[in-house]
Amino acid sequence: MTAPDPSAAFTPTPIAFDPADPTERRLAFLMEADRLKEIERAGRVAGGRRENSAEHSWHLALYALALGSEAAEGASVDRVIRMLLIHDLVEIDAGDTPFHGEKRADLDAIEDAAAARIFGLLPAAEAGEMLALWREFEAAETPDARFAKALDRMQPVMLNLATGGGTWPDFRVSEQQVLDRCGPPIARGAPGLWPRIRDRIRAYFAARGA
Amino acid sequence: MTAPDPSAAFTPTPIAFDPADPTERRLAFLMEADRLKEIERAGRVAGGRRENSAEHSWHLALYALALGSEAAEGASVDRVIRMLLIHDLVEIDAGDTPFHGEKRADLDAIEDAAAARIFGLLPAAEAGEMLALWREFEAAETPDARFAKALDRMQPVMLNLATGGGTWPDFRVSEQQVLDRCGPPIARGAPGLWPRIRDRIRAYFAARGA
Repeated sequence: MTAPDPSAAFTPTPIAFDPADPTERRLAFLMEADRLKEIERAGRVAGGRRENSAEHSWHLALYALALGSEAAEGASVDRVIRMLLIHDLVEIDAGDTPFHGEKRADLDAIEDAAAARIFGLLPAAEAGEMLALWREFEAAETPDARFAKALDRMQPVMLNLATGGGTWPDFRVSEQQVLDRCGPPIARGAPGLWPRIRDRIRAYFAARGA
Repeated sequence: MTAPDPSAAFTPTPIAFDPADPTERRLAFLMEADRLKEIERAGRVAGGRRENSAEHSWHLALYALALGSEAAEGASVDRVIRMLLIHDLVEIDAGDTPFHGEKRADLDAIEDAAAARIFGLLPAAEAGEMLALWREFEAAETPDARFAKALDRMQPVMLNLATGGGTWPDFRVSEQQVLDRCGPPIARGAPGLWPRIRDRIRAYFAARGA
């Protein structure tokens, strides 16, 4: 089944939500979150087009679900999934910062403000919980956050490998740069996965004669 | 930071996974799952373009996370999130069937075969778990599955409301058809949410003079 061609003009229609009602606040948050689908990343899906941050977040949550047995002892897969579902929402305001690109000096401040605004759409207690979960992810110190970070580093490598190098030739990064930048976070959060990724990175660069 | 323009030719590069190794099977499943990003739905994101099934799945998981307090007693939000992350994977083979469109007679058989193939990429025990979770979602009888189904019916309504009616004018459906088709599954899985959705549907059609 394909849908009828949407030839009728598209009319954006902002919905009003009552900020005094907790459930209305949750709906407002969910409508705002829709905008993450418009945030384009540097990397590509295996089909070739640029990936967006919403579908990337879905893919990462599925990574956590399928690879949970690779997490360090003490990690909770369900908590990692929650973390990954919300980890990129700040990009609605801050945009995506490519892993191999330059990071603007004020990025942390911009992302902090974004987190306060976006999670702040929720009722206060829930906003506080999501903000704490996002900060835990960013700090990458707990077993849950380390596993989440490892997956966030690993999934783009897999897609780069599936797309002729993906962002590596785009950013002209060397084999050693890829190994140095991706190795530590992946090895720390998912030690059993890193050798598989490392060997594939090496094979890619070897085949390219770089 | 924007990425350099990917003017270099894109080279799809299939990755080989060893089916005798459980972790390689998980990686093969995750690479196959990437294709859900290419499955276009009839509905649109608030920005206007067609939504794909991967970002839709992310949005639904976030709905479960933010609206968990609306689930019926006995529902597990984390289990609902897992269910929603995988609920549309069969569309990689079967395509999306628009809610207001016609359903082909052999759709159930096609989706069953798709589930067997896609979840079957995983090690057998994990494949069995995911298949059971997907079947539970489809049957919509447990509290978890009813809540998941309610969200799966509700999120497209919210996006239709945000896009001038979205798929409703596309499929020429009436107010009564929308209420009859969306009401029961939403009211059954998330009774507290339905009146908010119903009133907004009524207001949309009233404003349109339909």
